[in-house]
Amino acid sequence: MASGHSRIGIIGTGAIGGFYGLMLARAGQDVHFLLRSEYAAVTARGLRVESQVHGALQLDSVQAYRQAADMPPCDWLFVAAKTTSNAALAPAIVQAAAPGAKVVLLQNGLGVEDALRPLLRDDMHLLGGLCAICAHRAEPGVVVHQALGAVNLGYHTGPADAEQRQRIVDEGVALFRAAGIDSTGMPSLAQARWMKLIWNAAFNGLSVLLDADTRTLLRNDDSRELVRLVMQEVEGAAQACGYTLPPAITEKMLQGTAAMPDYLPSMYHDRRAHRPMELEAIYAVPLAQAAQAGYAMPRTEVLYRALCFLDAAAQPPG
Amino acid sequence: MASGHSRIGIIGTGAIGGFYGLMLARAGQDVHFLLRSEYAAVTARGLRVESQVHGALQLDSVQAYRQAADMPPCDWLFVAAKTTSNAALAPAIVQAAAPGAKVVLLQNGLGVEDALRPLLRDDMHLLGGLCAICAHRAEPGVVVHQALGAVNLGYHTGPADAEQRQRIVDEGVALFRAAGIDSTGMPSLAQARWMKLIWNAAFNGLSVLLDADTRTLLRNDDSRELVRLVMQEVEGAAQACGYTLPPAITEKMLQGTAAMPDYLPSMYHDRRAHRPMELEAIYAVPLAQAAQAGYAMPRTEVLYRALCFLDAAAQPPG
Repeated sequence: MASGHSRIGIIGTGAIGGFYGLMLARAGQDVHFLLRSEYAAVTARGLRVESQVHGALQLDSVQAYRQAADMPPCDWLFVAAKTTSNAALAPAIVQAAAPGAKVVLLQNGLGVEDALRPLLRDDMHLLGGLCAICAHRAEPGVVVHQALGAVNLGYHTGPADAEQRQRIVDEGVALFRAAGIDSTGMPSLAQARWMKLIWNAAFNGLSVLLDADTRTLLRNDDSRELVRLVMQEVEGAAQACGYTLPPAITEKMLQGTAAMPDYLPSMYHDRRAHRPMELEAIYAVPLAQAAQAGYAMPRTEVLYRALCFLDAAAQPPG
Repeated sequence: MASGHSRIGIIGTGAIGGFYGLMLARAGQDVHFLLRSEYAAVTARGLRVESQVHGALQLDSVQAYRQAADMPPCDWLFVAAKTTSNAALAPAIVQAAAPGAKVVLLQNGLGVEDALRPLLRDDMHLLGGLCAICAHRAEPGVVVHQALGAVNLGYHTGPADAEQRQRIVDEGVALFRAAGIDSTGMPSLAQARWMKLIWNAAFNGLSVLLDADTRTLLRNDDSRELVRLVMQEVEGAAQACGYTLPPAITEKMLQGTAAMPDYLPSMYHDRRAHRPMELEAIYAVPLAQAAQAGYAMPRTEVLYRALCFLDAAAQPPG
């Protein structure tokens, strides 16, 4: 296993970047963090994860950077910024990447790799990572980890044949497993993104529009039915786009969510903090792909347009 | 014209009851108001309509009653309470009704007459009145009238043959016209209710869910498209239910609304005041009628269920 010798960069140190970066560093990896708004807090007090699974975790001496030019070349780059900043971050990602680096987008939604790929070098491998985790950033440098934590990895594009792709995915999986994190390789990243989208398209938007966490949404008959209807619509879209999903996936996700603690999805936090919401990756791209496959998503479109309205009202006019 | 000799009762004196009751009284009709929460204010200070069309109008000596038992028997009863209180008000309506009285529901939505009919006496005529008006209650006894004002009347059920029905509708129309209010008889009340619903289903729900008035909803591309999509869905449902609507009705309503002043629909005011919203008449009945005709209304259902969730959260558990 080559994972012990990798230099790792974390691009974007909110809840996701902070949690996985800290876990990898605690497992002995050489982890370097690119930070913006959190830089002062992290260099002063370190990085803290208040985990309801692992207890309170603290990383004292964080290798923190304000700009990518100061970072050493990294073999693995985990991008955990908002998808809305991917294009703006692309130059920093390229700068921090060692030759043949593996870039992993730890983000939700569809099309995020497609959009970033043209902005990377040809020698760079691009992967997607889907995180099944309940976590949020409580304050600068402090992440609250409520539940779960698995990261599943899939190869997107890069200079690798099928065998090399498999080896790269296996290497990434080993990195996470060595840090005590569940991880599995995914044969189809696109299929896995659609599957995860079933949850995200329903709960992210409805948490914002109805100002409610997952438990509250599942407790009321109408909002639970709304969650189910949106999930089924996304499930249908995935199938119309040619992806085979596990049977009864919507019902299983509903049951899984009911077993989770109260959770406010990331879009809820973005909205509350007047940050842009990830509407492109979670709604616009899926709607466009479904439309191309001739599949209508009227419920999802209602959510999308309502959120666009709120997003426009929250942002200063461009 | 028999309108000069009619005794009129107004059941529910919010914006609609206050405005039309005052206009009829000023035109010399003998108008009696059944009031609950507004009683003290109206007996102390009279009834005021601050009209941006007609100027400030004041009715000083209001014939106001706390209970129907004290009212004289009325020939015409205009019910302008919330549809959500119709069943509770039925005994009062029956009590205030002279033999052969005409009861007119000045309310929006579908099925309101169907629901009230079994609670009335067989000698009573039931009509529906559709008000094209922008008005809201500013404080007890004070109505702000922003624009428009026409009332169109249609016969629902009662002990009248076709000719008598026409005569009754004509009499009601004459009452309003004599008070300076545009009024027309409608050959099909159900068709007219569906037509008005196109506007109400879109603007009422979206104003609540997006916390926005009509101008704001029409100014943003996404919310305007959302309004249009819901309108078109209701238009399609009406046609599926067998009603012929004027061509391009949705576009005409959008243009008409753009020409109106900023307006917050009644459901917005209900929500803000933590009153129950008229979800049955505006959403549940139309959805059920469309479903029976085999017509799906996925966008309208999203609005409906989202509003049900908010309504349940606003009301103390029953």
